Amino acid sequence: MEDADSFLAEPADTREAIMQATYRALCEHGYAGLTISRIAEDFSKSKSLLYHHYESKDELLLDFLAFMLERFQAAVPEESADPPEDRLEAVLETALSPGEGGPDLEFLRAMTELRAQAAHDERFRDHFRTHDRVFRETLVEIIDAGVESGVFREVDADQVAAFLFAALAGGMNQQATAEMGAEAETLAELRWYVDHRLLADDAQKTYLG
Amino acid sequence: MEDADSFLAEPADTREAIMQATYRALCEHGYAGLTISRIAEDFSKSKSLLYHHYESKDELLLDFLAFMLERFQAAVPEESADPPEDRLEAVLETALSPGEGGPDLEFLRAMTELRAQAAHDERFRDHFRTHDRVFRETLVEIIDAGVESGVFREVDADQVAAFLFAALAGGMNQQATAEMGAEAETLAELRWYVDHRLLADDAQKTYLG
Repeated sequence: MEDADSFLAEPADTREAIMQATYRALCEHGYAGLTISRIAEDFSKSKSLLYHHYESKDELLLDFLAFMLERFQAAVPEESADPPEDRLEAVLETALSPGEGGPDLEFLRAMTELRAQAAHDERFRDHFRTHDRVFRETLVEIIDAGVESGVFREVDADQVAAFLFAALAGGMNQQATAEMGAEAETLAELRWYVDHRLLADDAQKTYLG
Repeated sequence: MEDADSFLAEPADTREAIMQATYRALCEHGYAGLTISRIAEDFSKSKSLLYHHYESKDELLLDFLAFMLERFQAAVPEESADPPEDRLEAVLETALSPGEGGPDLEFLRAMTELRAQAAHDERFRDHFRTHDRVFRETLVEIIDAGVESGVFREVDADQVAAFLFAALAGGMNQQATAEMGAEAETLAELRWYVDHRLLADDAQKTYLG
């Protein structure tokens, strides 16, 4: 769910430089192959600085996850002038069209591995609980804006957001772990759902599927 | 997606006994904490037999995954006399109502970790590609049966199955890694989708959501 491309420009400070090196090393080696030493290889400052800041690989990765979530939150405007239906379509397309503005496959795979750490590590579970809450609240905000402007029907925004998020997360997980190539079908059906569940009658598109 | 309870009865042969011990050790220790030695602790026969059969923990786990998939395939009837809408509802409820006939949380967490191995290990990716194909074909078969009997509309069964599977997989992944407690909302919205996308007009239930 995190778009990381834009922060790979000139880092603003040491933390950002560490986060860039972590991102690159994650994409190259994945979680399983990652070590602080490998992150240091891509870090222009001293390796001892890295060990000074973080006691373990997992501590560094938890800080990386927090950093990426902060960036996501900063990038989402509290109020947007863009039409809610366009904002929702942008979310669906970013999640399910890898390589087209969305996270690339290597990063998606690394995130899948990080998320799986939550199965046995409460610190990761705490992070992903927050991550999922933030992401779902963003969806709820878009749906509420659409209901208010009259372009969406009056739905249970929490319930619709939970379902949308599950479908997006499942679709991304499948890209990373099974490469079924089913993203296009999932995305087409998600659009059917949005058209019929959310779009008010006079705004409803004709479904050609 | 695998229901494992029923095979925890008396094992039929050595392989089944190994698979039972693997299942129990996976639920207790997760993937990260699993060793062949820990599986052997729960295996009544000799530990050397285990090492004789498998060169590594991952080899044993890949055989375990194949075993569970074989069991799933054997349990799904090629043709069923049950109404397709009931069969579909049973799939949704099993996936998103943990502890009520579905896989319990410990097993779901272990499966999430195993699936994440596919991010960097092609052998796991091959397995999950087959797993997802088998599971989606099961959904397609149920949808086709419903279209044939007239209870479902004439939809693109592959596309609907891809979407349903993504939503189920995402919902299960979230249970295992974030514990948002959003399964009930996701399930309710999945039922809205099934009612409005699949059920033919004269079979459509009244939606009270």
